[in-house]
Amino acid sequence: MAGSSLGNIFRITTWGESHGRGIGVVVDGCPAGLPLCEADIQSYLDRRKPGQSKYTTPRKEADAVEILSGVFEGKTTGTPISMVVWNTNQQSKDYSEIASYYRPGHADYCMDEKYGFRDYRGGGRTSGRETIGRVAAGAIAAKLLKEMHIKITTYTKSIGPVEINMERFNLEAMTENALYMPDQTAAEEAEYYLESCLKEHNSVGGVVECVVTGLPVGLGDPVFDKLDANLAKAIVSIGAVKGFEVGDGFAVAKSTGLSNNDAFYVEENGKVGKRTNHAGGTLGGMSDGTPLVFRAAFKPTPSIAATQQTVNKDGEELSISIKGRHDPIIVPRAVVVVEAMAAITILDLLLSNMTARVDRIVDFYDKKME
Amino acid sequence: MAGSSLGNIFRITTWGESHGRGIGVVVDGCPAGLPLCEADIQSYLDRRKPGQSKYTTPRKEADAVEILSGVFEGKTTGTPISMVVWNTNQQSKDYSEIASYYRPGHADYCMDEKYGFRDYRGGGRTSGRETIGRVAAGAIAAKLLKEMHIKITTYTKSIGPVEINMERFNLEAMTENALYMPDQTAAEEAEYYLESCLKEHNSVGGVVECVVTGLPVGLGDPVFDKLDANLAKAIVSIGAVKGFEVGDGFAVAKSTGLSNNDAFYVEENGKVGKRTNHAGGTLGGMSDGTPLVFRAAFKPTPSIAATQQTVNKDGEELSISIKGRHDPIIVPRAVVVVEAMAAITILDLLLSNMTARVDRIVDFYDKKME
Amino acid sequence: MAGSSLGNIFRITTWGESHGRGIGVVVDGCPAGLPLCEADIQSYLDRRKPGQSKYTTPRKEADAVEILSGVFEGKTTGTPISMVVWNTNQQSKDYSEIASYYRPGHADYCMDEKYGFRDYRGGGRTSGRETIGRVAAGAIAAKLLKEMHIKITTYTKSIGPVEINMERFNLEAMTENALYMPDQTAAEEAEYYLESCLKEHNSVGGVVECVVTGLPVGLGDPVFDKLDANLAKAIVSIGAVKGFEVGDGFAVAKSTGLSNNDAFYVEENGKVGKRTNHAGGTLGGMSDGTPLVFRAAFKPTPSIAATQQTVNKDGEELSISIKGRHDPIIVPRAVVVVEAMAAITILDLLLSNMTARVDRIVDFYDKKME
Amino acid sequence: MAGSSLGNIFRITTWGESHGRGIGVVVDGCPAGLPLCEADIQSYLDRRKPGQSKYTTPRKEADAVEILSGVFEGKTTGTPISMVVWNTNQQSKDYSEIASYYRPGHADYCMDEKYGFRDYRGGGRTSGRETIGRVAAGAIAAKLLKEMHIKITTYTKSIGPVEINMERFNLEAMTENALYMPDQTAAEEAEYYLESCLKEHNSVGGVVECVVTGLPVGLGDPVFDKLDANLAKAIVSIGAVKGFEVGDGFAVAKSTGLSNNDAFYVEENGKVGKRTNHAGGTLGGMSDGTPLVFRAAFKPTPSIAATQQTVNKDGEELSISIKGRHDPIIVPRAVVVVEAMAAITILDLLLSNMTARVDRIVDFYDKKME
Repeated sequence: MAGSSLGNIFRITTWGESHGRGIGVVVDGCPAGLPLCEADIQSYLDRRKPGQSKYTTPRKEADAVEILSGVFEGKTTGTPISMVVWNTNQQSKDYSEIASYYRPGHADYCMDEKYGFRDYRGGGRTSGRETIGRVAAGAIAAKLLKEMHIKITTYTKSIGPVEINMERFNLEAMTENALYMPDQTAAEEAEYYLESCLKEHNSVGGVVECVVTGLPVGLGDPVFDKLDANLAKAIVSIGAVKGFEVGDGFAVAKSTGLSNNDAFYVEENGKVGKRTNHAGGTLGGMSDGTPLVFRAAFKPTPSIAATQQTVNKDGEELSISIKGRHDPIIVPRAVVVVEAMAAITILDLLLSNMTARVDRIVDFYDKKME
Repeated sequence: MAGSSLGNIFRITTWGESHGRGIGVVVDGCPAGLPLCEADIQSYLDRRKPGQSKYTTPRKEADAVEILSGVFEGKTTGTPISMVVWNTNQQSKDYSEIASYYRPGHADYCMDEKYGFRDYRGGGRTSGRETIGRVAAGAIAAKLLKEMHIKITTYTKSIGPVEINMERFNLEAMTENALYMPDQTAAEEAEYYLESCLKEHNSVGGVVECVVTGLPVGLGDPVFDKLDANLAKAIVSIGAVKGFEVGDGFAVAKSTGLSNNDAFYVEENGKVGKRTNHAGGTLGGMSDGTPLVFRAAFKPTPSIAATQQTVNKDGEELSISIKGRHDPIIVPRAVVVVEAMAAITILDLLLSNMTARVDRIVDFYDKKME
Repeated sequence: MAGSSLGNIFRITTWGESHGRGIGVVVDGCPAGLPLCEADIQSYLDRRKPGQSKYTTPRKEADAVEILSGVFEGKTTGTPISMVVWNTNQQSKDYSEIASYYRPGHADYCMDEKYGFRDYRGGGRTSGRETIGRVAAGAIAAKLLKEMHIKITTYTKSIGPVEINMERFNLEAMTENALYMPDQTAAEEAEYYLESCLKEHNSVGGVVECVVTGLPVGLGDPVFDKLDANLAKAIVSIGAVKGFEVGDGFAVAKSTGLSNNDAFYVEENGKVGKRTNHAGGTLGGMSDGTPLVFRAAFKPTPSIAATQQTVNKDGEELSISIKGRHDPIIVPRAVVVVEAMAAITILDLLLSNMTARVDRIVDFYDKKME
Repeated sequence: MAGSSLGNIFRITTWGESHGRGIGVVVDGCPAGLPLCEADIQSYLDRRKPGQSKYTTPRKEADAVEILSGVFEGKTTGTPISMVVWNTNQQSKDYSEIASYYRPGHADYCMDEKYGFRDYRGGGRTSGRETIGRVAAGAIAAKLLKEMHIKITTYTKSIGPVEINMERFNLEAMTENALYMPDQTAAEEAEYYLESCLKEHNSVGGVVECVVTGLPVGLGDPVFDKLDANLAKAIVSIGAVKGFEVGDGFAVAKSTGLSNNDAFYVEENGKVGKRTNHAGGTLGGMSDGTPLVFRAAFKPTPSIAATQQTVNKDGEELSISIKGRHDPIIVPRAVVVVEAMAAITILDLLLSNMTARVDRIVDFYDKKME
């Protein structure tokens, strides 16, 4: 089954393996007339690039994007935008050993069972490099959303036991530390914690949080294509994500109706507001005009240098120690991936929402026909 | 946008409002030859029926299903199966008041903004009765999965602060209490807790857990149609769900690679097994042959009799107290909804997985052509 | 595979068998605010109703539609519109014989091979009654198109060897004869020809033509979702259609570039016009502002009383004569089916076209947010 | 709207413009284990390559394909196969003039209206070069079909007034003439006719016919995803196609039930056969085990050197003569495009047909689990 596409109107299709020719994405359904150049994409890709700090793999990957189609005279044309990042620094020899056995926490075993064999070089299609296509597509979506004053802020909420303190919340701090934490004190604690992980050849998990402001009311469709449902799929489809929650999330399970319901009130400008935002900006699966807030839980990097038990293709048990260049923590580089998936999901629902009302459709075409 | 369909091969489309003529579903793509009768569906619907205990609304709804198409001589024909539950006990007068204002925690305001107006009777399309279509479709999916020895077990894991104790875990207890908790002691504690909620005209949230055994290895497609990603969408699309997690879920964020990775070993029968199951039965988005385990967090019922602040359509603030018949807890009746969504998602991926390998396709048609 | 749905944004899903409980359709993605009642649907269904003349089956089928959801206070709500026509006049005994053998020109044999068995009563799912769902959905699409001044005119172009004469073309004549021919003289000739067919227990084919005016320029998407490509699928999916052509159609194969190209010119109102319309209103798969013109070729009714050779399920050859009530010509009742499929296809592309340009999207939301 | 994808299970997404960086396609859902190399693709692309004769444009385009992903150790891996043909010989200066005006018979005007502007170089996305992606994807589909003994034969049936004579039908002749006509005498007549067109700076249309043998019975789904309906969309989506017909096609409109119905009989091997094949191998939208036969009508090349009337972007009328290198006939190079679209459509339905019956699904997984 074709599982590499996402979205109905703004639809992306990714391709590529870790050690193949490159990683790419085709963005179909992008509206025409958006100013777009490679630098717009590159600035997003640079946020997931390895080698940014000692907590990310020291592999040097330029990860330079090329736009192959769909842009003419500096603007999107409405036709598919094909983008590629060529693989230039892949050292196949580093990965040759893993061809024979199944790495714990990885997809190796499942791929062999499903497809009969697998491209084992660097994880092949199941490598984290697959997210390059997502980020490139997300950069386009985010640019279009920005034209509509929709703003997405994504950051590291926690690394292992170290969580940001909302009283110290400071977005500018995020660019001052290598962990994308908007709390410099927490970042320093987290760095200290990561040092100990590195020493033990171990890795650690964490949580990414995303806040979206400026959404019109009503994005998302009742029943299956709810805003939060589509976000859930988009976010959980990121490798290593094991949990998704919106608003108060799992905490609602211990809450009561009286404390969890957000009271409505009338804002000074006459619009409907909410006194609190336990719901995280979505009611009945539709945006409610308040900030959309959601979180994703990332598991620890499964590739670790410490000794592990596993089996090989011949059904023999063995001990392994995974060599190579691996991040001890996925989260900092995953922040932009979460942001990209949010942008793609929101833009798709924003476009589909245009057909919700007959009067607006008639008005749209009346105006167009003038 | 059409948002009332889910699935690629086994595809369901639901329709209907709380106080309209009825609630229905069309199941398209169900394979031919499955023995099916209305009793198969009814037994699932009865698990979500109101009026089962004092913790569920005392409304009496027979919720009797009728199969309108797609079944002939006791078996599915391969053509669309249309099912309906007629609304027979809806008292519109109970709900007339809510036409004018926006209930906190409900979709009322978003619906008005999105569509220009709404069917306000009992929540209309955004009522919990919408899940009838899901459960009816899920009953069919579950029956087919059962023929393949795939078993789905779903239960209440927690209600408010009361969680089941895994050492007392007893599936048979689940049918002995009204809360679908597989731990009779916890169920009694939860009932005691619910009594206090009822007295305060309040409501409470909870967690549903689902375990699926017997899955072949490799269900789910890499990248976007991962088993857990599709499950996340299916589950978060259930009204009132605010969080989804698979395996250790959000706990992985505080875990390390060494403790979170599940070591592989060789089982006595020669198959590949895992020493632990932190992953919850999925690796790289594909089933790994061990039990699939996931959880959903449900918010407290938003309709409560206690006084709340809100606004009306004319932009005036007011105090309301929601009358009517409402469950103080959604979870017990939602258990079967979660199970239904799991069955639908898994069956769809099971069918799509049949085309993963050329050799099996050639073999399939060679055999068929004999 | 789920094959009973069509459309991306305005999406229909049909269900039901000839002799089951009824025939229905769920229309998902219909914009909110369209005034709609059962009479709007019924007037379309009445055009395909049997028993209108001696050239249509004398079966009496009221074919009264019921709207089960998606309409509130006389307007569409934006949620799925479920409609049903109950089967009330089906006489199963008439069809019992055909359970054992395969009718030439029918799907019986293919259904048995594909699904292992079939609902043989009146053709089951493959009966012409399946088109009821299409027509009901098409009536909604057509009503919305009418609000945008898009007009669809469909008629019988030919019956057997008798074709309408464009010099005598008169739309009003269409309602004066039983054959929906806009040429009374041709209609009388065709009736005379049909008499001879009836005497010989034979049937005959014909051509339906459809003209759509008022389309904005640019409907249809380049590459696969071209206006004419989507129309081709929609029309050829009607049982008995064996050919589809747009504009000059198959005649272009013998034409030259000089005679086939339509010269552009400037109309008095300053708009771009075309001197001729060999293209049939579509260029590069998009509407070009001139009338969309297409045709469908229908085969003769396969159910005939004359003797035919066939085989039965046990692999024995036999002679049969199909009893029962069958039209000697499909075309007159198919006219409204073609019109319905055109309306559904065009509306879907009209809605999807709203997202073609960034400036219009920004403008749409700026206006909405005011 | 995303209109550059086709197929449900075997799903292709094309991208690229005539004078951009290249033309490409992503094939998602291709089963794993198919031996595949660039030569497999190239042999198909070479059949549509320009410069093969004086009746095709003298442009020299190597059109060499590169496989960028999805193939490992000589076999497909089950992950997306990305392919590209770089544009190496595009001379933008040749096309600069057409930026300002609308070529008759081309999409220029519609593109400007739909998207606000267009990539005018060589037709941009609406160029015939777009079919490169279709042919590359079709080559893969065809290779897989060949493993299942399904054979597709496609040829030029007519050019202008010259049609092949079925009594002289000779497949080997097809490779002996530049027009892909399986009748050397007709080919010579057609060449003579084309000479006169060239002298008049004119172009001509034609018909392509395709015959598919070896199909299992039952491909195609009742209602909308009929084999012939999906084929109709796939074929009419090829630029320049104005008509599609299956079996006797438009001729059925003048036929009678007695002559059009194909009588069933029992073949020597005990299988069900048909005495004739007016239906063209499909009954009720499903393959019936006999050869699938369909035709496509291609319009004359719209780009001609003869003088034509048109308008420019400023709303002024003008006379033009299109310079450049254009085929006087599209058909010979379109033969392989038709074949590719047939292969893609048939493979997709073949894969989806695997889930038609419960017994075969259970059997498939029982076997797999052994």
